[in-house]
Amino acid sequence: MSTTGSSGGFASRLQSAVEQRRSQIVLGLDPDPARLWPQALEAATGSSAAELAASAVEAHCRALIDAAGPVCVVVKPQLACFEQLGAPGREALGAVAAHAKAAGLLVLADGKRGDIDISAAAYGRSLVAHTETPFGLVDGLGADAFTANPYIGKDALEVLVNGAREVGAGVFVLVRTSNPGAADFEDLELAAGGTLWERVATTVDQLGDSAALSDVGAVVGATAPQHVARMRELMPRAIFLLPGVGAQGGKVEDLAAAFAPGPAGGLVSASRSIVFAFEEHGGSPAEAARAKAETLRDAAWALGAAD
Amino acid sequence: MSTTGSSGGFASRLQSAVEQRRSQIVLGLDPDPARLWPQALEAATGSSAAELAASAVEAHCRALIDAAGPVCVVVKPQLACFEQLGAPGREALGAVAAHAKAAGLLVLADGKRGDIDISAAAYGRSLVAHTETPFGLVDGLGADAFTANPYIGKDALEVLVNGAREVGAGVFVLVRTSNPGAADFEDLELAAGGTLWERVATTVDQLGDSAALSDVGAVVGATAPQHVARMRELMPRAIFLLPGVGAQGGKVEDLAAAFAPGPAGGLVSASRSIVFAFEEHGGSPAEAARAKAETLRDAAWALGAAD
Repeated sequence: MSTTGSSGGFASRLQSAVEQRRSQIVLGLDPDPARLWPQALEAATGSSAAELAASAVEAHCRALIDAAGPVCVVVKPQLACFEQLGAPGREALGAVAAHAKAAGLLVLADGKRGDIDISAAAYGRSLVAHTETPFGLVDGLGADAFTANPYIGKDALEVLVNGAREVGAGVFVLVRTSNPGAADFEDLELAAGGTLWERVATTVDQLGDSAALSDVGAVVGATAPQHVARMRELMPRAIFLLPGVGAQGGKVEDLAAAFAPGPAGGLVSASRSIVFAFEEHGGSPAEAARAKAETLRDAAWALGAAD
Repeated sequence: MSTTGSSGGFASRLQSAVEQRRSQIVLGLDPDPARLWPQALEAATGSSAAELAASAVEAHCRALIDAAGPVCVVVKPQLACFEQLGAPGREALGAVAAHAKAAGLLVLADGKRGDIDISAAAYGRSLVAHTETPFGLVDGLGADAFTANPYIGKDALEVLVNGAREVGAGVFVLVRTSNPGAADFEDLELAAGGTLWERVATTVDQLGDSAALSDVGAVVGATAPQHVARMRELMPRAIFLLPGVGAQGGKVEDLAAAFAPGPAGGLVSASRSIVFAFEEHGGSPAEAARAKAETLRDAAWALGAAD
């Protein structure tokens, strides 16, 4: 039973969307209530600071989706940014996810979750499925995929992956992130050879299904392009989610190896560089966001289409 | 500015509570809507399945806190179990946390969060502080501490720790968990010597403040007691959160090294063994939960008071 609203598994839905839209751009939604587009502030309604802020965040994300969504293929809400607004934030998150899906975008819930057995299962239900209760089914967020943290082990990841697979959703496991601190643990050399992230990459490959593009993807920071080819070697069928382009200094041009399995093999995630493009380039927030997303889309597609 | 409602940092608040209650027991709250205490189901109100289930979950947790809380020192809500009920679940979580605090318990939000810069900061605000918005401050959950995942590096942990420290809250970093999969990555031997979890333990020690009991604690699975002495060596001032006692097979008696820095050096977390004690031992759910918590408390206190 699928609650993701489309037929086929995540990878095949993504593949269709990428080919149809000729885009591999993931629109990151990490709204800071103190830096919303002006039009969103004016649209706020509610009777508490949390309700007002959440409604402004929702209006901001809707406007961003309307502006840049047509040239993107996935939206990636950063869950923390909604959670900080409490229950109204969760309502806003649900409304934003529904708006994105109605606009033909896939939804990737970015919460970097990881826990054992019953807790891992609950995260899966919360994000991509539904929960059985004595009062009837409670729908989850309805996301198409979510991000997961591998630290506590393969058994924990398996619960997340199995829960997602049951409803045709995908999981993106953190492998090698885009922050400087990735050197602290992820890059550690193991006594048995290779690095921790290479070991995690091998596990990601094992967890995936047997499709040409697997339902278990990898988060691969775009700020360390020298690793991308090695990652592709270890995870030939994984979809790479590539954050760190733009504000964090990564360049689309450095990521060609990601697209080896085809155009949907790499997803280029950008958030601040799109939403705040108007501050750098002028114009209205919406026009500048659209223009920036188009630039990123064209740069990525030129690489992805080269195969 | 503290939003945690008490003076002093987390470790000193915990220390006072442990000495006053002569207890080191953490009451885990991981409500499964399909296995709530019967009285909680009868108390449900609301107009949707999510609202009804969330109100039943809230009633269940309140009853559990009323029954077993007086012999415990901390409650540890498992965030996934509330998140799966959407916005009503977040309302229930807030009400449960407030009920626990009113009962004199500290609240440890168990979400195993981990992310970079602005996202990490947002998680901290969401759980232990508040968020500034153009519409005024939005309060977070008001927890006293939260759990964090170290995988993506020290810089990510620092943002969480600094955010918590500003409001006198604590952070518990996953070091070596209680699941079998802990062997997959946490236990890996490093080329430079030692295991990954030992390296994480050293980082936890560095991140802590200079107090006799530090504000950065460690999650240390009670199912691998052979590691506890080594962990204490690496983290002499960290508070150890010890899950895995009871349902997962760990025994309080094996954890003496945790209490080396004093009675508040080790927190014994139990959830299913308390909440479902009535199924094993008979009696009312509340009486059986209280009795089981007392047994655990006495066993732990005998070890902790031996120093």
